[in-house]
Formats: sequence, structure tokens, C-alpha cells
Amino acid sequence: MTLAAVDLPRAYRLLNHGPVTLVTSAHAGRRNLMAAAWTMPLDFDPPKVALVVDKSTYTRELIEASGSFVLNIPCRAQADAVLAVGACSGRDADCGGDKFARFGLATLPAAQVEAPLLAGCVGWLECRVIPEAHNEQRYDLFVAEVVAAWADPVVFANGRWHFERAPADRRTLHYVAGGAFYATGEGVEAAAPVAVG
Amino acid sequence: MTLAAVDLPRAYRLLNHGPVTLVTSAHAGRRNLMAAAWTMPLDFDPPKVALVVDKSTYTRELIEASGSFVLNIPCRAQADAVLAVGACSGRDADCGGDKFARFGLATLPAAQVEAPLLAGCVGWLECRVIPEAHNEQRYDLFVAEVVAAWADPVVFANGRWHFERAPADRRTLHYVAGGAFYATGEGVEAAAPVAVG
Repeated sequence: MTLAAVDLPRAYRLLNHGPVTLVTSAHAGRRNLMAAAWTMPLDFDPPKVALVVDKSTYTRELIEASGSFVLNIPCRAQADAVLAVGACSGRDADCGGDKFARFGLATLPAAQVEAPLLAGCVGWLECRVIPEAHNEQRYDLFVAEVVAAWADPVVFANGRWHFERAPADRRTLHYVAGGAFYATGEGVEAAAPVAVG
Repeated sequence: MTLAAVDLPRAYRLLNHGPVTLVTSAHAGRRNLMAAAWTMPLDFDPPKVALVVDKSTYTRELIEASGSFVLNIPCRAQADAVLAVGACSGRDADCGGDKFARFGLATLPAAQVEAPLLAGCVGWLECRVIPEAHNEQRYDLFVAEVVAAWADPVVFANGRWHFERAPADRRTLHYVAGGAFYATGEGVEAAAPVAVG
């Protein structure tokens, strides 16, 4: 797999179209991943993101301990994995304690944070939490700075997605509910603004 | 146009797949709309959303004055309008002072808030701001409760999208940059989780 660095001021473009993400986290030899649809860009430069992580999750524990996480952007080929890691907790014995091992998911080391990059994804945002206790407690809302970003250069280059030149299974996913997603679809070019009358 | 009420605990489903939105706002006889990709669900019940609105915008002024806004979810047929309303400010003389009039955009009254619903969209979330001065000042981040929600029942029914049964131009849009979007694409059903080994 090739992995190209994304210029930080363009990192928001990885998330701008609203794909579902997989959040990886790690601390002191433990690691986890969970699916997260509730995430968005929050600023351009330095890039920031917002992410909702429920208090009950193992991911929350690891993010709070490490102060960092990675937003991995999975593609259609990984839809089953997205559902699988969202269906159980890394804290449960049923999950075998480590979802990566349980579901046969390979990783790569991140450059700036403890959490790993999930192999096979099409984009990755390494994030360091900006502590905001009120938001975290009241809304389960985390604000983080993106400190490194990566993409598969076949589908993301020059600061934008190019799904049209890649196989259909490299398209990103948009989460509906249950096991249902939509793939990112056709490109639409809007016309320049025209006023009426 | 038919418009069906969406049960509030299911309202997050309108935004879950990451569509671009048009934010309408109004106060004391003035109104505006702007495009916003940086929005996400924040809670289920009562439903909450998060939205980024830059300090320089006319929309920000109207949201702060009224304490409310509507997230309108446009469809592919409206791509030109999304680009148009994002390309100029309702404060500028060039925009004729009212983007609805300038671009020939019809509206419907909302049930709970001052801002109008933009006609022709496929979903609408009427939102009341939960004041969070620190977030608003530091991150341009607004938290709001969804107080009413509506959808075109052809494309959203029983708490989920059904784009497959509607014309292609009723699909939602995902914002890339410039005048470029992706339409919401094919449905993808993930298989039940299977563990390895």
C-alpha cells in the first residue's frame, strides 16, 4: 500500500464530504478501534476536527489516557470491517480484547501519535486532543488538532478526492444505520452562480 | 411539495451520512442562507447538532440575534443553488441583500423557528441554539437542539433514506471544494460481523 502525506491545510478535505470514519486509539500497549460517523472538520489551518465519543466506550478511555487518536477513512472494500468493529466493544471478552486481531485487521505505525493507522483505508488524520472538559463531559464532544494526514494517492491527490479513476471498492462510505451505508457516488459539478432577473 | 414530519429521535438520520447543508436564518424581517458542510449530529434524543459558522458571516449575525436556524438538506437538482448561495454574502449589495430573491429560491414557514425552510430540499432540521459562548468564540462552533424535523417522504421514510426509489436528482450532495460535489451513491449492505480464526 502506498501512503502519501497530505498538506495539513488541505487535510480537512479528507472529511469534507462526510464519510464514516474508524477511530483508532492506543495507550500503554492497549489499542482499539470503533466506527464513528459523528465527526466533522472544525478549522483549516492549523486543521482541527470535532468528534463525538460516548463515555461508555473503550475508545474514550484510550483517547483520554493518550490525548490522541487517528481518524481512518475506510473504503467500500472495508464495509464489513466497519460494521464488525462497531458491533462490539474492545473491552468485552467476546471481542477477544483486541479487535485488530479478532477481525484480522493490519495496521501501520502513525508518525505523530500512539494510535495505529488501519491498513487498507484511503485516508488518515492523526489527531491530538485539545482539552475541553466541558464539551467532553456535557456533549461527549472532542476537539482535536490534526498533526499529520495521509491518503492513498490513487484516490486523493492535489488536495482532493479522485474516486472516478479508482476501482469502485476504493470509494468512501456514508453511514445510514444498522449495516447500511451509501458509497460516495457520482461527481457533480455545479455551474457558476447566476442571479435571477 | 410534500413534507412529512420526522420523529425527533430519528432526526439525526437526516445528517448521519454527511450531506452538505444550507443554513437558513432570519431575524426581524431579514433572512439569509449559506452553504455549510461542517455540521454533524451530536445526540439522539433530544436530538442535537453541531455546526461551524464563521464570525464574518451574515448568517452568524442572524443566528446570534434569533437564537435559531434551519439546516436544509439540498438535493442534486439544487447543486447550482448551493454553489450560488455559498459564493456571496447576503450582506453585500452584489447579492441584492436577499439571496432568496436574488436566486429565485422559494421558502416555506418553519414550525418552531423564525428561519424559513428552503423549498425543493429533501430534509429540514429546525434548530434552537444552546448557548455555549466559549465554543462560539473560540471555534465558531454552535451546538443546537433540533426542535422539529421534516423530510420529503419519497426519499426519507420510516427513519431512513430511500434514494433508490426516487429520481437521481433527489439524491443528497457531499461537498468537495469549489463547485465540486459527489452525489450520494449506491447502497452498500455490510455483512454481519465475523471473527477471524
